[in-house]
Amino acid sequence: MKMIERKIYYYDTDCGGVVYYANYLKFFEEARSDYLEKLGFSMKELIKKGILFAIRKQEVEYKAPIRYGEIVKIKTWIKEVTPYRIRFYYEIENESGKRTTTGTSDMVCVNSNMSLMEIPPEISKKLKDEVGE
Amino acid sequence: MKMIERKIYYYDTDCGGVVYYANYLKFFEEARSDYLEKLGFSMKELIKKGILFAIRKQEVEYKAPIRYGEIVKIKTWIKEVTPYRIRFYYEIENESGKRTTTGTSDMVCVNSNMSLMEIPPEISKKLKDEVGE
Amino acid sequence: MKMIERKIYYYDTDCGGVVYYANYLKFFEEARSDYLEKLGFSMKELIKKGILFAIRKQEVEYKAPIRYGEIVKIKTWIKEVTPYRIRFYYEIENESGKRTTTGTSDMVCVNSNMSLMEIPPEISKKLKDEVGE
Amino acid sequence: MKMIERKIYYYDTDCGGVVYYANYLKFFEEARSDYLEKLGFSMKELIKKGILFAIRKQEVEYKAPIRYGEIVKIKTWIKEVTPYRIRFYYEIENESGKRTTTGTSDMVCVNSNMSLMEIPPEISKKLKDEVGE
Repeated sequence: MKMIERKIYYYDTDCGGVVYYANYLKFFEEARSDYLEKLGFSMKELIKKGILFAIRKQEVEYKAPIRYGEIVKIKTWIKEVTPYRIRFYYEIENESGKRTTTGTSDMVCVNSNMSLMEIPPEISKKLKDEVGE
Repeated sequence: MKMIERKIYYYDTDCGGVVYYANYLKFFEEARSDYLEKLGFSMKELIKKGILFAIRKQEVEYKAPIRYGEIVKIKTWIKEVTPYRIRFYYEIENESGKRTTTGTSDMVCVNSNMSLMEIPPEISKKLKDEVGE
Repeated sequence: MKMIERKIYYYDTDCGGVVYYANYLKFFEEARSDYLEKLGFSMKELIKKGILFAIRKQEVEYKAPIRYGEIVKIKTWIKEVTPYRIRFYYEIENESGKRTTTGTSDMVCVNSNMSLMEIPPEISKKLKDEVGE
Repeated sequence: MKMIERKIYYYDTDCGGVVYYANYLKFFEEARSDYLEKLGFSMKELIKKGILFAIRKQEVEYKAPIRYGEIVKIKTWIKEVTPYRIRFYYEIENESGKRTTTGTSDMVCVNSNMSLMEIPPEISKKLKDEVGE
């Protein structure tokens, strides 16, 4: 499990006064990417080796809005690891501890031609240890 | 049903060479918003009356990447209308007719305090006529 | 000279209720890129040949805000072409004909290592013909 | 003077492999906004009082590209304060200490109708003390 804190800037919001619905996926990228780095994976190094991560499926539930200037907590868990897919789950909490947003991503590995490949075992193994943490 | 065409710009893509996964939700906004306008709804006028649309749930399946310079077709259907929710379904097709992406949004009506409200009947009625088109 | 029309979506705006200041640069990309295509240049083909365009300097003056739902006109001119630099000038006009925004970009050519290169003469020649149009 | 550190994510980049030129303005917002908070100004509180900040003019010089995964330093100075305008200057430095980007923003105060107003003296005074720091 990994938790990051994130301040909401003007550029995250829209004229409805709240965070724009697409921008939550950027927060999820931050959380997911920082989690993978915490586990010792350098995305930059993996890219050099021709191993790229891509999102195959994404779900978001927007339960309550988030506004400019708030500092939110974004928590990420690895829920499942299969030979071809890693499932991430996210929860966003606002300053008063309310769960505003949840999400799920199915991530896969692709090579530099964007063709699906099996998750390299050294990655797979480490991620499996995180399931349920 | 509504179909729009959309050229992919640099700002839609990321360093993986393809459209960034959050940006599909912007394409969906374009398609959905143009659809509602085609049906005679001015979002600007609705906002003035204190009726805002918000996305409550979003799903995306990324089946194949889209690249810079491609012109894609984004098709939108209204799948279901209940007193509190409008379900949109989207399909994106690339230039060679391949279906690259699908998505579903659950949209609700909120007032200017972001509190859930029933979909006004004059809106609801028109949208119901579109279901199955 | 090239003129495009652009509708303002939620994703272009921020919680100040108006277009976010960075997003004008996306409008400029659209205008500039459509202009170059009108002149017969395919960015995709140029990229394949290892010729990339990059912005070296950007200026924007924000004279009046643009709001959600407006349809603006974005006009682009090529102001100057030197062996290493193409200067674009932009004007954005809102629906009531008011000039809301102006901008200038200095564009250069770089190879795939991001090293500066001379503008290929076949490009340079065509762009020079546009200066003052 | 205020310095922040910022990791570059996928969403900051484009298919040229580097940070997209508009996204630097988001980095500048982060730096500027964190600077103003360090000085004790809460943007949220100012907005509630009907005092908004808006950018009137923006310049950026892109000297060298920034890539995915880099951690950059963004430094901000207040260069000048006049009754109606605050000038910010920015420098971005990459991990090897190279200055990749510089920028200047002219910020003004507007009321909730987006009309120009004088910078409130309590703000003006504090910002003037920062000039040259």
